[in-house]
Amino acid sequence: MKSIAVFGLGLIGASIAKAVKQNSDIKVIGWNRSIGVAEQALKDGTIDCIWDKQSPLCADLAIIAFPPDATVAFLQENGGRFSKETVVTDVCGVKRHIVLECEKICAQHGLTFIGGHPMAGKEKGGYANADAGLFVGASYIITPTEHTPERAVFVMQEFIRILKAGRVTVSTPEKHDRIIAYTSQLPHVLAGAYVKSPTCRERKGFSAGSFMDVSRVAAADENLWSELFLYNGENLCREIDTLIANLTAYRDAIREGNKEKLYAIIKEGRLLKEADLR
Amino acid sequence: MKSIAVFGLGLIGASIAKAVKQNSDIKVIGWNRSIGVAEQALKDGTIDCIWDKQSPLCADLAIIAFPPDATVAFLQENGGRFSKETVVTDVCGVKRHIVLECEKICAQHGLTFIGGHPMAGKEKGGYANADAGLFVGASYIITPTEHTPERAVFVMQEFIRILKAGRVTVSTPEKHDRIIAYTSQLPHVLAGAYVKSPTCRERKGFSAGSFMDVSRVAAADENLWSELFLYNGENLCREIDTLIANLTAYRDAIREGNKEKLYAIIKEGRLLKEADLR
Repeated sequence: MKSIAVFGLGLIGASIAKAVKQNSDIKVIGWNRSIGVAEQALKDGTIDCIWDKQSPLCADLAIIAFPPDATVAFLQENGGRFSKETVVTDVCGVKRHIVLECEKICAQHGLTFIGGHPMAGKEKGGYANADAGLFVGASYIITPTEHTPERAVFVMQEFIRILKAGRVTVSTPEKHDRIIAYTSQLPHVLAGAYVKSPTCRERKGFSAGSFMDVSRVAAADENLWSELFLYNGENLCREIDTLIANLTAYRDAIREGNKEKLYAIIKEGRLLKEADLR
Repeated sequence: MKSIAVFGLGLIGASIAKAVKQNSDIKVIGWNRSIGVAEQALKDGTIDCIWDKQSPLCADLAIIAFPPDATVAFLQENGGRFSKETVVTDVCGVKRHIVLECEKICAQHGLTFIGGHPMAGKEKGGYANADAGLFVGASYIITPTEHTPERAVFVMQEFIRILKAGRVTVSTPEKHDRIIAYTSQLPHVLAGAYVKSPTCRERKGFSAGSFMDVSRVAAADENLWSELFLYNGENLCREIDTLIANLTAYRDAIREGNKEKLYAIIKEGRLLKEADLR
């Protein structure tokens, strides 16, 4: 791999660019909607050059690091200028919608698409929070389909190795969306719902680690997360319903003052967590 | 202050003993139901001597570091052997029940009681996880009532300073229980309810920080937490209901595919979290 293009220099895109620059000799071409950020990235050495949107793009791997709708729109607008050898990937937290749309567009231009989702992030986004070490030890999910040539998987594996990620998880887009609804989207729903209690305003001096943990990601960007929630609506609604049912079981046992039942419910949670840690 | 007694050498009790030994010249008298742990603590220098349950206790401050029911039972059984000058405190996560019961018992013996709740912990309890630095920077709540002499507040303030806690929060038992239901007990309910989704078993390779955060305290000890939940039942049920209502608002907006409504709900959460951080 000689060159990588990164479109979108927010937290994920710029962290990818920084990691590739730090860990390899690969040339990093960058682009950002606000040109000021791209210029800053060039000055910082986060990227080697800024892509001129009017010219052809020649890169082994093109990473589109936008939210879902912007990812599809960007590929639609610019895919025609990518060289035929380019493997195109994204970083979105939903995969069925993205893979369906992006495979379609890529097929029109003779390009290869493979969905990607690095399992890393921070509660604060943007170029200023980018970090070459963001992916170290993390899982990086790729979602090849029956249309994906093996070469695209190899290119992604090499790229993920350069990021020093901890593992490559290969999944179907369907399985990805089903599990991610639980591991990532539900905690974001939860954090937002949690801080809406009126009691939150009185918590200073009365809180410790467990408050901070649950509320950490409550400041989710509504532009990104409204798209992620809606493109994975049925999976996420099912997880919210499951959580509500489980919360209700605690509440009912507490309301009834049923110590035996409550004891069993808490113990079940402990055993599941301990099994998860093993 | 010349001597402190710590009854119960689990995570909280032994961390208190270690902190007092590390940060002062105060003599630490220790006692534990399983004598083996007390002997280990003596060997480790966590305590200076083991209290002989048959002898009178002479200490400036006696810290009962058990769950609620065991705290009340211990005081009932042993309070009569405490010297009249002893200020007695506890470390329980509920205060109305504890303060009511312990004030009553202490009054019978001419002792002074003041409720305490250090806002620090770990997801794993026990002597083996005790740490002299556990309280550094944390809040330590005390709940004096109309029956509490000022001297007891001063003794607690000195003790809390020795632990290097970050702040003393003075509260009524009622306010404590109302806010703690939200900041501490609800996250424990939530963590347990969260890991009960069947999807949890498939999460490896598909999870990152937000999964770990929400599930961190899911392995709560059912003996302790069933008592805490039940002694604060009405506050905790109210918070669970509020959370369920807020989760339902997300679910309904997602199910309706109502992007505008969902956007507003997520944004509201972000603004509340940002206000909390300021």
